[in-house]
Amino acid sequence: MGRWNPDARGRLERAALELFAERGFAETTVPQIAKKAGLTTRTFFRYFADKREVLFSGEDDMREQMAAIIRDAPPDLSPIQLIEYALEAASTTIFEPRRDAMRDWRAVVASDEGLRERALRKEQLSTESTIAALGERGVDARTAELMARLATLALQSAVTHWIEDAASPDAASPDAAGADRAAPAAQDKPLVVFVHESLDRMRAIVSGQPL
Amino acid sequence: MGRWNPDARGRLERAALELFAERGFAETTVPQIAKKAGLTTRTFFRYFADKREVLFSGEDDMREQMAAIIRDAPPDLSPIQLIEYALEAASTTIFEPRRDAMRDWRAVVASDEGLRERALRKEQLSTESTIAALGERGVDARTAELMARLATLALQSAVTHWIEDAASPDAASPDAAGADRAAPAAQDKPLVVFVHESLDRMRAIVSGQPL
Repeated sequence: MGRWNPDARGRLERAALELFAERGFAETTVPQIAKKAGLTTRTFFRYFADKREVLFSGEDDMREQMAAIIRDAPPDLSPIQLIEYALEAASTTIFEPRRDAMRDWRAVVASDEGLRERALRKEQLSTESTIAALGERGVDARTAELMARLATLALQSAVTHWIEDAASPDAASPDAAGADRAAPAAQDKPLVVFVHESLDRMRAIVSGQPL
Repeated sequence: MGRWNPDARGRLERAALELFAERGFAETTVPQIAKKAGLTTRTFFRYFADKREVLFSGEDDMREQMAAIIRDAPPDLSPIQLIEYALEAASTTIFEPRRDAMRDWRAVVASDEGLRERALRKEQLSTESTIAALGERGVDARTAELMARLATLALQSAVTHWIEDAASPDAASPDAAGADRAAPAAQDKPLVVFVHESLDRMRAIVSGQPL
C-alpha cells in the first residue's frame, strides 16, 4: 500500500463507526479499525489522538459548514427567517445524506457515559461557533445566543424524530426490522419537514397557542 | 470532634467551592477541602467519590426540587403558563438565594474541560428529569421535550445575565470590582425579571416579531 491513502480519514471514520455499532465501543481496538479501513495503526494515529476522537472529527467539519451557511446567508433576513434559512440549508447539504451514519453515531454515543459527555461538549462548541457567526452579521450577543440555542434545539428535536421515523418498522410489515436499513423507503419524510414541525411546535409553546 | 457532623455535606461543598475558586480546581486536594470544612478526609469520602463530584451533588437536589415544582403545579396550566410557573418558583426558591455560589461554581466549571463536560451532562439529566415530570402530568413526549428544553434555555440565559448584572462593577464607582461581592446591592434585579426577559425574547424570535 502506498503512502498516500485517498480519503484515509473518511475510511477510518466509517470503519470505526461500523465496528463500534457492531461490537460496542469498549470492545473495539484501534488496530481493528485500521485493519477494517485497509490502513495501518500508524496511519490511524496520524489523524486521531484515540478511538474516541474518531467519532467527533466529523463534527468539526459540520460546525464549519454551519458557520459558513450563516455567514453567506442573505443579509436582510429577520432572526426567525435566518434560523429557517440556516436549518433548511444544513438539513439538505449536511444532514440529509448522513441519516444512517447519524443513527449509528447516536446509538454508539448513547452507549457510553464518556462519549455522551464529549458529545454534549461538542454540541456546545457548535452552538458557540453559531453564536460567533451571528455576531459577525451584527446580531447582538444576547439575541445571538438565544437564536443559536433555539436553532440547535429545533434541529436536535427534528433529527431525533427523523431518525426514529425512518428506524420504526412499518406496521404493515412486521419483518421490516430485518430489512436493509441502508435503503430508505421512498415515502420517508425529509429532515426539513421535521425542522418546520419543531419550529411550529416551539412557536406554539412560547406563544401560548394550542398545540 | 464527635462522629455526628451536622450538615457535613454542605460544609464540604462550601469549602470545596471556596478553595476551587481561590486556588484552582487542579491545585486543590481533598485533604485541604476536608481541613477547611473542619472534617476528616474519611468523612469527605463518605459523601463524595472524588473532588469532582463535590461540585455536582447539589445539582441532584436541584433536579429533584424542579421535578417536585412541576408535579405540584396547578393542573390546568397551558404549556407556556406551566413553564412560567415552574421557572418563577425555581427562581425564587432554588436559585435566588444561591447567586454568589452559582457565580463561583460557573467560574470553576468553566476553568476545566472535564468539568465542563460533566456539567453539560448533569444539565441534560436535569432536562430529562423535567421531561419525565411533564410526562407524569400527561404532556405528550415531543411537547414535553421541547417544553423542558425551552425552559432550560430560558433559565440558563436568565441566570447568565443575572450573574453578569450583579458581577459588573457600577460605572460610577470604578473601585467596585474590589468591593465585597457577597453583599448584593439593593437595586439588583431579581432572577425572575431576567427569566421573563428571556422568555419574551424567545417569543419575539420564534414569532418573527421585532426584538
